Amino acid sequence: MHAILKYIFLFLAPFYVNSLECDQALLEEVRSYKPIVEGIIEETINGASKGLCYKKLADFVDKYQKRITGSQILEDSIDYLVSNLSSPESVMDEVWKEPAPDLPHWIRGREEAFVVEPVKKKMATLAFGSSVATPNGQALVAEAVVVENFDELYKLDPSQVSGKIVVYNQGYSSYGESREYRYKAAPEAAKLGAVAALVESIGPFSINSPHTGVTQYEDGVEKIPSIAITKEDAEMLRRIYRRGQKIVLSIKSNSTMLSPVTSHNLVADYKGSEYPDKVVVVSGHIDNWDVGQGAMDDAGGMMLGLIAVEVINNLGLPRPKRTIRNILWTAEEQGLLGAEKYFNQHQNELNNFVFVMESDSGTFDPQGLQYTGDRQNGECIIKEIVSMLAPINASKYEWTSGAVSTDITHFTDAGVPGAGLWDPDEIYFYFHHTEGDMMTVEDPDALDRAVALWTATAYIIADLNSDFPRSTSTCLYSPSILSLILLVYALKTLL
Amino acid sequence: MHAILKYIFLFLAPFYVNSLECDQALLEEVRSYKPIVEGIIEETINGASKGLCYKKLADFVDKYQKRITGSQILEDSIDYLVSNLSSPESVMDEVWKEPAPDLPHWIRGREEAFVVEPVKKKMATLAFGSSVATPNGQALVAEAVVVENFDELYKLDPSQVSGKIVVYNQGYSSYGESREYRYKAAPEAAKLGAVAALVESIGPFSINSPHTGVTQYEDGVEKIPSIAITKEDAEMLRRIYRRGQKIVLSIKSNSTMLSPVTSHNLVADYKGSEYPDKVVVVSGHIDNWDVGQGAMDDAGGMMLGLIAVEVINNLGLPRPKRTIRNILWTAEEQGLLGAEKYFNQHQNELNNFVFVMESDSGTFDPQGLQYTGDRQNGECIIKEIVSMLAPINASKYEWTSGAVSTDITHFTDAGVPGAGLWDPDEIYFYFHHTEGDMMTVEDPDALDRAVALWTATAYIIADLNSDFPRSTSTCLYSPSILSLILLVYALKTLL
Repeated sequence: MHAILKYIFLFLAPFYVNSLECDQALLEEVRSYKPIVEGIIEETINGASKGLCYKKLADFVDKYQKRITGSQILEDSIDYLVSNLSSPESVMDEVWKEPAPDLPHWIRGREEAFVVEPVKKKMATLAFGSSVATPNGQALVAEAVVVENFDELYKLDPSQVSGKIVVYNQGYSSYGESREYRYKAAPEAAKLGAVAALVESIGPFSINSPHTGVTQYEDGVEKIPSIAITKEDAEMLRRIYRRGQKIVLSIKSNSTMLSPVTSHNLVADYKGSEYPDKVVVVSGHIDNWDVGQGAMDDAGGMMLGLIAVEVINNLGLPRPKRTIRNILWTAEEQGLLGAEKYFNQHQNELNNFVFVMESDSGTFDPQGLQYTGDRQNGECIIKEIVSMLAPINASKYEWTSGAVSTDITHFTDAGVPGAGLWDPDEIYFYFHHTEGDMMTVEDPDALDRAVALWTATAYIIADLNSDFPRSTSTCLYSPSILSLILLVYALKTLL
Repeated sequence: MHAILKYIFLFLAPFYVNSLECDQALLEEVRSYKPIVEGIIEETINGASKGLCYKKLADFVDKYQKRITGSQILEDSIDYLVSNLSSPESVMDEVWKEPAPDLPHWIRGREEAFVVEPVKKKMATLAFGSSVATPNGQALVAEAVVVENFDELYKLDPSQVSGKIVVYNQGYSSYGESREYRYKAAPEAAKLGAVAALVESIGPFSINSPHTGVTQYEDGVEKIPSIAITKEDAEMLRRIYRRGQKIVLSIKSNSTMLSPVTSHNLVADYKGSEYPDKVVVVSGHIDNWDVGQGAMDDAGGMMLGLIAVEVINNLGLPRPKRTIRNILWTAEEQGLLGAEKYFNQHQNELNNFVFVMESDSGTFDPQGLQYTGDRQNGECIIKEIVSMLAPINASKYEWTSGAVSTDITHFTDAGVPGAGLWDPDEIYFYFHHTEGDMMTVEDPDALDRAVALWTATAYIIADLNSDFPRSTSTCLYSPSILSLILLVYALKTLL
């Protein structure tokens, strides 16, 4: 090999670190779980655990429907599960609540919205969480300005907006992009003197179905009501506005922000046999909005982990070496607040958190895992686990350097490897934060497949001889530094 | 040929009448319209008429949204179109209203429905059209009985139902089958002493979206409120009921049936050049429920015919030999009542009605035509027309001996050949009779394709040298009688 080629090779080699071969012994170890995975699949798809997740989920959400932060229903639902998981029939070893203080306590109250001119129409609405009321909770009647996006708003003169209600008909691109309108619609309109913001719901499809979700205000900017309207009505208002017709709206909301409250994260341990202090977290959030049952957002996700431990027990599998910890996060809908409190309270124990998992994007047709963490042996393990889930079509995986699910983000940002249940179905955002998030969206078989995937993943990772590999924090830099040294050396030799 | 084979052949021959060859001269005549059809397609898909149907439809439904029979909005919308179609810019030659008297005038009023026990939940509702109010329009609080179908109801003893609210959670099979629950839920429950019926909406999919529609009462059976609830809530109530929990509901409705009213069918003629008294009807219904805009049910269908005539004019095509008559039916939602009145008023002129067309199943992705009429040359013509619509994927057709669309059924039952726009998309019943039937469901391109299909079909049939062939009323019997004679003769010869 010519010297220069050798140096180029040496220079590039560190970038190929990701294609280094898996540790064969580790791979063999993961593969040895195949009979166990087959047993888990059989148990959940055809066995005694078939339909268990759907049944328990329905029992729970039919009883506790609107588990919004600050509500008695949310705290009752947490206490119900604590009691349930602490009962003699439960397989859990320890169950406790951890307080999450200083949470917002917002109450919707009554809402109404009408088009008054040029036609009469009652509009379906859902004020966004944290929205202020209309002045004195009374009807606010004002002319409307309809924009399609922030750019269009920013081009308006304050005189065109002042005293008016800004209607956003921004359409839907992706949840991540479109929800910026939920967050910023009110303050951006208020900066130009608007008296309220009506925002097209953040969702790709609607049957007159408004979507709520948390909104944001800015310090020093007037807080004005921020209310979701349906895609249908937002489009209608835009059409009318484009025809040059004057639109007058009447809106009323008496939502209130009360004093902060304390809620609770619920923690339930299935203790490991060898390293009980080491935990694999399976999780979902228990709170939802004050609409629907929160069946898919996120009682279903939360239930997967609880059922996973039951499946392990029902199958009589040996205790995994590490603890499987169910965490039922509170106040996710308010901005991952329960999870933030928990992380702050436990960030000194990060070494004990071996792996974190959450499902918070539905269980419509579980495809596999979205994974963040070590790209060598860690990725090898995940790839090997999902390959064993091919019989239930859940063998896809996707690596990302970013978040894989909502509540576990603090952990994964801090370098704890983690996985989210991968459910690519766009239909999730049909129902997200609407009154339609009911058990009707759940399919017992899809839930069973998600349980199988969840159980197999948690069990194997909790039971491996060695902890799930963690990327060293310098790993992204090391190859570059090495490359730099090699490059300097190469240039020195050549020149 | 052996004698017996000859007789068997003769016996079977009449059954093969449908495979007789098309009249070649007629076929050639239909094929000669190919350049015209290509022009129509080009004009609607890429030409000056592109997007015209969507624009005019939006203008109309944004202005007149809830065109329920008896409402001023319905009559205003009819007058608006009369004025519009009579203007100097209109291509119509004659426009008039025909009174349809004695129509029901039902008003919804306010509605509320709550689950009171064992959980608290506000349910979305839409009382069915013609439903009576709760007693004095006040809250009616009663225990619920939940059934999945009529069979389950019929097995109950009156003592189990008396004084209770019957909830139907019948699921959705097809619109035709499932709507029986909308019609009969109340009287069947009332026969057992129930005080109200809550019925799962007739639709395959829901985002907390109740569907209304007309209900029916029986003479001599107590009239009790008949109210649609969502699929989600019906399923929830069934689950709770199956757990053996007592369900208490509180419902309120102050809908009212006022004195009968007169509405109007709107008729607009584009006169034929040679046989102006002979008409090809293109139609849709102008009324809708008091929910949504009735964009797809059925303003969109209605608009196709109006635009078709504009397209013919825009293209400068020769006047067709026969008149193209747009009929905008009223009071379809009340049971095809406007169409029934019109038919009764015109049944002595059936020979002048050459062909009847209606679109009332959406225009989501127009596939072709559903046709009823003569199975020989008539079917040949239809097949030939739709084959020319292959460039817009609208070349399917389906023959049926029954109805092809709602309002034209009296005509087709009386032997007038007819066609309905074939739109197989199940999504139609996602929105049908809901607040979600808004312009958002309409796609400008799909509407353009439907206009092209509609225009080509109406133009060719109106312009053919001979009237569209009509089946003789004895045609189904003649072959059988002939067969019988032949069979007797054959047996006589052989035996």
